[in-house]
Amino acid sequence: MDLRHVTSINDLDNDEIEQVFALADRYLDKLKDADHPHRIGESTDVAKGAILASLFYEPSTRTRLSFEAAMIRLGGKAIGSADPATSSAAKGESLADTVRVASNYADVLVIRHPRDGAAKLAAEYADVPIINGGDGAHEHPTQTLCDLFTLRRENKQLKNLNVAVSGDLKGSRTIHSFVYALARFGANIMLMPAKGMELPAHVDWRLRHEYRCGPLPKDRYDNAAMDALYVTAKQPHQLSLMASPPEFERNVRVKKGVDVVYVTRFQKERWTEQGQDYPKVDAKFLKARKYREARVLHPLPRVGELDASLDRDKRAVYFQQAAYGVPIRMALIALMLDLDGRNKWKKFADGFEKSSHVLFDQPKDAGIECINGNCIVHDKLERDYAKSRFHLIEAETPRLRCFYCERDIDSFVIANRKTRHYDTNLTARQWPDQKHARDFVLFKDTQQAEHVGYAKRQQAGRKAKAR
Amino acid sequence: MDLRHVTSINDLDNDEIEQVFALADRYLDKLKDADHPHRIGESTDVAKGAILASLFYEPSTRTRLSFEAAMIRLGGKAIGSADPATSSAAKGESLADTVRVASNYADVLVIRHPRDGAAKLAAEYADVPIINGGDGAHEHPTQTLCDLFTLRRENKQLKNLNVAVSGDLKGSRTIHSFVYALARFGANIMLMPAKGMELPAHVDWRLRHEYRCGPLPKDRYDNAAMDALYVTAKQPHQLSLMASPPEFERNVRVKKGVDVVYVTRFQKERWTEQGQDYPKVDAKFLKARKYREARVLHPLPRVGELDASLDRDKRAVYFQQAAYGVPIRMALIALMLDLDGRNKWKKFADGFEKSSHVLFDQPKDAGIECINGNCIVHDKLERDYAKSRFHLIEAETPRLRCFYCERDIDSFVIANRKTRHYDTNLTARQWPDQKHARDFVLFKDTQQAEHVGYAKRQQAGRKAKAR
Amino acid sequence: MDLRHVTSINDLDNDEIEQVFALADRYLDKLKDADHPHRIGESTDVAKGAILASLFYEPSTRTRLSFEAAMIRLGGKAIGSADPATSSAAKGESLADTVRVASNYADVLVIRHPRDGAAKLAAEYADVPIINGGDGAHEHPTQTLCDLFTLRRENKQLKNLNVAVSGDLKGSRTIHSFVYALARFGANIMLMPAKGMELPAHVDWRLRHEYRCGPLPKDRYDNAAMDALYVTAKQPHQLSLMASPPEFERNVRVKKGVDVVYVTRFQKERWTEQGQDYPKVDAKFLKARKYREARVLHPLPRVGELDASLDRDKRAVYFQQAAYGVPIRMALIALMLDLDGRNKWKKFADGFEKSSHVLFDQPKDAGIECINGNCIVHDKLERDYAKSRFHLIEAETPRLRCFYCERDIDSFVIANRKTRHYDTNLTARQWPDQKHARDFVLFKDTQQAEHVGYAKRQQAGRKAKAR
Repeated sequence: MDLRHVTSINDLDNDEIEQVFALADRYLDKLKDADHPHRIGESTDVAKGAILASLFYEPSTRTRLSFEAAMIRLGGKAIGSADPATSSAAKGESLADTVRVASNYADVLVIRHPRDGAAKLAAEYADVPIINGGDGAHEHPTQTLCDLFTLRRENKQLKNLNVAVSGDLKGSRTIHSFVYALARFGANIMLMPAKGMELPAHVDWRLRHEYRCGPLPKDRYDNAAMDALYVTAKQPHQLSLMASPPEFERNVRVKKGVDVVYVTRFQKERWTEQGQDYPKVDAKFLKARKYREARVLHPLPRVGELDASLDRDKRAVYFQQAAYGVPIRMALIALMLDLDGRNKWKKFADGFEKSSHVLFDQPKDAGIECINGNCIVHDKLERDYAKSRFHLIEAETPRLRCFYCERDIDSFVIANRKTRHYDTNLTARQWPDQKHARDFVLFKDTQQAEHVGYAKRQQAGRKAKAR
Repeated sequence: MDLRHVTSINDLDNDEIEQVFALADRYLDKLKDADHPHRIGESTDVAKGAILASLFYEPSTRTRLSFEAAMIRLGGKAIGSADPATSSAAKGESLADTVRVASNYADVLVIRHPRDGAAKLAAEYADVPIINGGDGAHEHPTQTLCDLFTLRRENKQLKNLNVAVSGDLKGSRTIHSFVYALARFGANIMLMPAKGMELPAHVDWRLRHEYRCGPLPKDRYDNAAMDALYVTAKQPHQLSLMASPPEFERNVRVKKGVDVVYVTRFQKERWTEQGQDYPKVDAKFLKARKYREARVLHPLPRVGELDASLDRDKRAVYFQQAAYGVPIRMALIALMLDLDGRNKWKKFADGFEKSSHVLFDQPKDAGIECINGNCIVHDKLERDYAKSRFHLIEAETPRLRCFYCERDIDSFVIANRKTRHYDTNLTARQWPDQKHARDFVLFKDTQQAEHVGYAKRQQAGRKAKAR
Repeated sequence: MDLRHVTSINDLDNDEIEQVFALADRYLDKLKDADHPHRIGESTDVAKGAILASLFYEPSTRTRLSFEAAMIRLGGKAIGSADPATSSAAKGESLADTVRVASNYADVLVIRHPRDGAAKLAAEYADVPIINGGDGAHEHPTQTLCDLFTLRRENKQLKNLNVAVSGDLKGSRTIHSFVYALARFGANIMLMPAKGMELPAHVDWRLRHEYRCGPLPKDRYDNAAMDALYVTAKQPHQLSLMASPPEFERNVRVKKGVDVVYVTRFQKERWTEQGQDYPKVDAKFLKARKYREARVLHPLPRVGELDASLDRDKRAVYFQQAAYGVPIRMALIALMLDLDGRNKWKKFADGFEKSSHVLFDQPKDAGIECINGNCIVHDKLERDYAKSRFHLIEAETPRLRCFYCERDIDSFVIANRKTRHYDTNLTARQWPDQKHARDFVLFKDTQQAEHVGYAKRQQAGRKAKAR
C-alpha cells in the first residue's frame, strides 16, 4: 500500500515543509475567525469520518491533545491509549504487533515511545501513515514544524539566521530534529549545551557531512557560553559527501547578534545525574546586547530553565509557538492523508522515499548490533520484530547507520558470506550495491568475525561487486 | 426498559450470530472501499449522536480501541475510562453504582473487569445495553464473534470443522466463549492444553451435557498433544439434558487433518507459576501433515507462544482476525441498538431472554456461596450489590450454576424455609418451580444447614412443588 | 478577551442559576425523547465543531465522563487527560503553563485538581472559559447545580427548605458549594457533621456574615445529631456586612421535619485518620418521623455511608441526581459558550465579575501568605505563577481572603510601602481603595513587619485614602 510516514524531519523535503506551512496559514486564519473568538470549531470538515489513534508509551499531555484537537478541527475523531501501564504493552505485546492491529482502527497513527527509532519500527509494520510524536532521544519532527513555523510567522527568514540552541542538546529529541532542519534551510547554529549534554557525535557528524555545516573558528565569534557555531554552506542541502569540503560563507554576520534562542528542558526522565548547572534563561541573560532582537522559543514543558518573568517579554514567543501546534498538525495530517485539494504528496511503496544508501539486513543473532543501548532493536519485546538493519554511509571513512535510531557506527568490518572472508578497508568502489547486500554480513571487529569462522581476505582475494 | 445485553456468547442465538456476520460483511465492504484505501471513514452514520462508554478495569488497548473505532465508524462517539487507578473504583465505588451512573452518559456500555461475572452484575444495574469486553476468566463474547467470522471469511464451514485449541484453556476467557460457540455450530473441538491449564470442569460439563458434545475414544485419533477431542452430536443445540445420550457422529473425519489451530496467550496476569512448558506454535509445529490446510488464529496479544516467523505463512490469519474486530463490533452495536433497518432483535424486560432454569436468590449472608473465588460476588466493593444467585441445572445429578460467573456446584442441599427441613436428593419432579423458589434456601452441605437450625427431612416429609 | 469562568458557585448569580435550570429542563426533555429510549443522541448540535478538554489531576470517572457526554450531546467533541501520572505534570509542568497551552486545543477547559484554588489559578492563565470540576476541598460548583436542580425537579422550593447536610463537612468541596447556594436561595441548613469534620470556620463565617444566615438557638430544635442550624435571613442575598444584624425568620418551621438529607462520602484521600464514627444513613436512620418526606441526596460515589438498602426507597433520589449531570452540564456549557440563542450571559474582561472587595497583590516573597497549606499557592510547581493575592473583606473585624482558595485570615497588619509604617487597626474609612492597594503590603503580625524594617504608625501618622 502506498503511503507516507513522518518518523523524522528528514522524511519531508524542504518543499513539503513549505506546503505544510502554507496550509497551516490557511487553517490558522480559520481558527482565529473573529466571529467566534471562543469557538475555534468548524474550521473545516475535510477529515469527516476519519480517525486518528494516538499510541503513547510515554507521559504526554500537550502533544497528544494537540494531535487530537487537530484531527477534530479537521472534522475527524480521535481515539487513543495514553498510558503505558493500561495498554497491551503491559501484557507484553510488541509495538510491531500493536501497530499492525491498530492499523485497523484508525486512518493515521501517532506514536510516542521511550525508545529511539520506535517510530521507524512502527512504520515498518503499519498499514496506515505513522507520525512520530517523539521517540526516545531520536527525533520529534512535528515539534520542529511548529518551531520553524513560529520563526516564519515572526518574519524570521531561516537563511543565515543565527539560532542559539541551549540546554540538553544530547537527550532532547526536539533539538535533533530542529538542528537538521536549521541546517537544511541554511541557518547558523550556535550550540550552548549544558555541561555534559553536548550535541551527540552522530548528529554533529551529519550536520557537518550531510548538511554541509562547517564550524566557524572560535576567534570569529565571542561567546563564552557557546560551544560551537555551525555555519551552513552555500548549498546546504547537497548531500554528496564525497565532494570537496563545502565553501563556508565566511561573511556570516555572527556579530549582528542572535536571532533566536531555543531553550530546552532538562530531560530528567532520561538523565539520572542532577541538572545542577543547567543553563537558565531569564531576564538577566537576555539583557546582553546580542539578544536584543532575539526571539525566545521553548518546546515546553519547562521546568525552571526558562524564567516565568520572561512571559511578558515581547521576545518570548513560546506560547505562540505552542498555539501553532494545532494548525501545523492539521496541515500535516491533511497532507499525509491526501485531504487537501490543492497539494498532493508523493506516496511511496513502503511509506518512505527510497534511500540512496545501501541497506544491510543482518542475519538474526549474528554480527554487529546497534551501539545505542536505547535503540528500539534492544527492546526485549521487539526482539522478533526489529532485526539489525544498517544503512552504509559512504563517507571518506564509511560508517553504518542504524535504520531505526540513526545512530552511527564508524568502525566495523564487512564479510562475504559466500567466501567467508572479511575486509576492513574497502574503498568506495568496492562496496556492495543493494542487490548484493544480502551476501554480506557486518561485524563490529575482526575478533567477532573470526569468532564465527571468517578469515581475513588475502591481498589478491575476491573483489566486492562495485556499484 | 426493554433492551438487550451481551455478557456471554450464549446471550446470542445462532441466528443472531449469523445476522451479526451478515451485517459485518456489509460494513466490511464499506470499510474497504477502494476509493479511500487510507480513509475508512464515513462508512455509515446510523449511530449519529450516540455515545459508547467503555469502562475498563483491566489493561487493554485493542479491545477498547476497536470498540471505540467501531462506534465512530458507525457515526457515533466514544468516551471512556481506561485506567482502574484513575477511576471511581479508586475511591472505592462499586461496579453496580458506576454502571447505574454511567447509564446516564452513554447509549451502550462496554465493560472489562478482572472478576468473573462482572458483566452480568453490570447488566443487572444498567439502564442501557451492556457488552462484555472480557470478565475475568469467564467469557469474551465479542472476541468469539471475530473468531467465528474469520473462519467464515476463510470459507471454513463450522459444521464438522476440526478445531484445535491450544494453550491456557483454563484461564483464557476467549477460549471459554469460543468452545461454546464451536459446539453450538457443530465443530469438533480438539483440546491441546498447556500442562495444568486444562479446560475447567464446568466448561467441560456444559460441552458434554448442554451442547451434546461427546469425547471421542482415544483410539479414534492419534495425537499425543491432544488432551481430548469433543465430537458434537447431530443436533448440537438441543439442550434437553435428560434425554438419552447423544448419538455421536462416529464417522467424524478426524484424520482428515486439523482445520484450525487456535492459539492462546499465557495469561501471566492470572497465573503466578511460570509458563515454562507452555506450548509454542511455530513453523516446526505446523510442518506436521495434519496442519497442512490449517488456519492459525490467535486473539492477540501474543507473548511468545506464537512465533513471529509464522507471520508470513499463508495459514496465519490472526492479523486478519484482528482486522475484523471493527466491522464485527459495528454490526453488534448496530443490532443491539436497533440501528440496522433490516434486522430487529427481540428485546427482553431485563436485558436477557428468560432462562429455563429456576433461579434461586439466596438470603443475604446465609447458605451456599459461589465456589469461584474470583467471582464478582466475592468482590468486597460489590458486597451490597451482588447477592448469591444460582440457577438450578436439572441434570441427572443436579447442579447449581452461579448466576454471575456460571461456575457450577455439583454438591449441595436444599432446604425449605417454612418447614425448616433440608433435603439432599430430590428427584427432578420434586424441585421447586420459579414461583416457589423464594421458599427455599441452599446450603453447601448438611452441616451448614444444621448449623443454622435446619433438620433432615423425614421419609414421609413435605413434598416440594413439582414443576 | 471577554469570557466567563465558573470556579465557584458564587461566580453565578441566582438568575443565571435559574437560566441553567431552565435550559437543562429543555435538554432533559430532548434526552428523554420517547422515540429513542436507548438513544439519547442528536438532542442538539449547537456545539458542532467545539472541543471540551478535561484536565484532571485527580481520579474521577463520573465528573469527567458527564462533562464529555454533555459536550457530545451538544454536538461537540471531547479530549482530555485523565491521569496525573501520564500528563505534563509528571514532567514537572505548572498548571499555569498547561492551561495556557491547552487553551489552544479547546473551547472550554474543565479542571479537577487536588489543590484548593487551582481552578481560579487556571482561570487567571486561560484564554478560554474554565469550569471547576472540583479543586481540593474548595468547591465543586457543577455538582451543586445538579443538587439544586434535583431538588427543583422534586418540587422542592429552596426558600425555607430544611436541608440537613451529613458527613464530612470539612473536606467535602461539594458541601461548601452547596451550603453557599442554599443560603443564597434561602434554605435552612442543618449541620450534621461527622466527628472532627465540622464545617470550616471560614465557610461558617461566610454563611453568617455574607449570606446573612443566623444560627437558631439550640432550644428551638431538638436534634442531638445536629451541630448547628442556620436560618437564612429574610433578604438572604444582601451582602452589606456592615449593616445591622439580620432579622431572622423566627417562625422557621424546624419541627415540620427535614426536607432534604444530603449525605457525603468520607474523603479517605484527604483524611488520614480512620472514619470509624462516620455517620451512616440507612433505613433505620430514615425511620424517624422527621424524615418522612425527606429526599436523600448524595453526590456519589458512596463508600458505605449510604446503605444500598435505601436504593429502592422512594425518598432516595441520588441516582436521579446523578442522571441530571448531563443536562445540567449541557446547559452550563451552552450558556458559557454563548451557544443558547435565548439567553446571553454577561462576559467579563478577566472572566469574572469585578469583586467589590479591594484586591492586594503581595510583593513576591514578602509579607503574609495564605494559611491554607493545601492552597494552590503553596504548590511548588506553581511557585512562579501563583503570587499571594488577598481580597480585603471589610467586616467589623476585617479579614483577608485568599484570592485562590478563599480561605480567610482574621489577623494581620497592613503597612504602607512609602512611609514604611504599619497599622493594626484601621477603621473601614481608612482602608486603601483598589487604586492605592499597590502602595500597601500585608504582614501576618507586627513582628514580621518589623523584621523587614517597618515601624508602627504614630498616632498622628499618615491617613490611608478613604474609599
